[in-house]
Order: sequence, then structure tokens, then C-alpha cells
Amino acid sequence: MTNHDQLAVKMVLDLWNSRIKAIDELLGKLTDEQLMHEVAPGRNRGIYLLGHLAAVNDHMLTILDFEKQVHPEFHEIFITKPDKAVAELPSASEIRTYWKTVNDKLAAHFAKLSVDDWFQKHTLVSAEDFAKEPHRNKLTIVAGRTAHLAGHLGQLIYLK
Amino acid sequence: MTNHDQLAVKMVLDLWNSRIKAIDELLGKLTDEQLMHEVAPGRNRGIYLLGHLAAVNDHMLTILDFEKQVHPEFHEIFITKPDKAVAELPSASEIRTYWKTVNDKLAAHFAKLSVDDWFQKHTLVSAEDFAKEPHRNKLTIVAGRTAHLAGHLGQLIYLK
Repeated sequence: MTNHDQLAVKMVLDLWNSRIKAIDELLGKLTDEQLMHEVAPGRNRGIYLLGHLAAVNDHMLTILDFEKQVHPEFHEIFITKPDKAVAELPSASEIRTYWKTVNDKLAAHFAKLSVDDWFQKHTLVSAEDFAKEPHRNKLTIVAGRTAHLAGHLGQLIYLK
Repeated sequence: MTNHDQLAVKMVLDLWNSRIKAIDELLGKLTDEQLMHEVAPGRNRGIYLLGHLAAVNDHMLTILDFEKQVHPEFHEIFITKPDKAVAELPSASEIRTYWKTVNDKLAAHFAKLSVDDWFQKHTLVSAEDFAKEPHRNKLTIVAGRTAHLAGHLGQLIYLK
């Protein structure tokens, strides 16, 4: 009988990987020119949403206490500010590389964590708060970010 | 120290509840007339997406071995068939009630499950397969359906 903790970790990581893979497959079908389009009239452009997802994943590198962010300067343009607030975004090619780089780094770190590590606190919660709210662990971060990925994937598919 | 199994169940249910709540809040702001609009040009209408989510949740009542579906006849029009394949969908008011009814039923059943129950098999997997693949449990169904809800929520917000 497999341990339930281990199953819970597998469940969360499987779902994360499935959403990353779905976005990768979509990106394989979209041209850089298509990424410059709005996903719906007056809504975010594909390039902004992809940069946003990559920046959120990049931020996970520090939230999960893995390593420094790859492009901390992208936080402002893809998370703090809305689309079209910046005169020129990084190129589609640069954002595609950013997306792949941070996901590869996350995957390498994920592979090194033990089941027990996943239930340890992330860096946005203090030790005092974590003692009272042990659900604020690393695994919960990945589960929440998976729902976030899924939401924007639902929008990005409209670029096809 | 809280048990990790228990934390995993809380994590999945918290995320499910947060997405249901977000959709409920959005529905509170949308008129029935707005629900009849396409979320983006040429895409699904809000009414279809809401019916689709409700029918998927309704199906969970049997997948999780809780009780019979409320509207099994909606499976065909909201899951098997795409939007606009049926001459007339049920009314927005009927679909709003359907959404609320199935979610209330799910919540009542969720509240009765023990942590251990969540790691038991769902009805779409055989006992033989479950012995080999114990991650195909009830909790995984809810986690997967949460990502599904999140994806369509990302589209429904374009109705605003």
C-alpha cells in the first residue's frame, strides 16, 4: 500500500506537469505573430499572458526556497503592471526561452524534494504562522499555481 | 503536528471551494442576458460553459460514488455535444439552479468523507487497476476537476 502523503505529492505534481505540457503543446502550434494577438477583443495579448505565467513560475523559485529568480525585473512588467502598460515587452522568442528556463529549473528542484519536504513551509509564511497554519506548505503553492496556469491556459487557447 | 494526509485533503478542498466561490461571485454579477453571449467571438456561450461545468460536477456525484446524477440527460447536451448543436438549451435560470443544486450536494457529501475515504478508489477505475494505480482515488478527481473549473472560469470572466 502506497503511503497517502506520497500519493498526494504525486497527484499535485502530475496535475502541474499536465498543465505545463498542455501549454507547451499549445505554444508549439502558435507562431510568434499569433502570440502578439489579444486572446479576445480588448483582453490581454498572448505574449503578456505567457510572460505573466513565466514570471509567476520564476517567483516560485524563491517562494519554494530553491534559488534566486531568473528575471526579477520581469515581475513588474508581467505581474505588477497590466498588459500594454509598458511600451515594448521582451520579444516572443525571449519570453518562450524564459518560460522554458524557469520550468526546467522548477522541475529539477521538484525532483530533489522528499515527500516530507513538500509539507514544509514556503518562504511567504513565517515560522510562527506556519505552526498554526501547516497547510501553508510548498505543496499547496504548487496546487494553487496549477489552478492559476489552468485559468490562463483557458484563455491562451483562444489564440488558435 | 497535523497529519499530512489531512493537510492534503484540506488543500484540495480549499482550492475546489475557492474556484466554486469565484464562479458564484461572477454569476452574481452577470445577468441572464449576458450569459447568452459568447465569451469571445465564435467561442462558447456563457450559458453553455456554465451548463458544462454543472454537468461535469453532476457527473462527479456518481464518479465519487455519492448518489445518482440530478440531470443525466444534460450530459449529452453539455458534455458530449458542443455549444450550438442543440436548438434550445435549458434556460439560464434553470442552469443557475442546476449549478447550485449539484454543488450543494457535492459539498454535503464532501463533509461526510473521512480523510481515509478520500484516498479510496472512484467508480471509473476497477479494483484491479486501483491496486496497481492507487493515485486514481477520489481526491485526485476533485483536484483534476478544480483545474477544469479554473480553465473555464478564465473564459467566463470575459463575459463581464
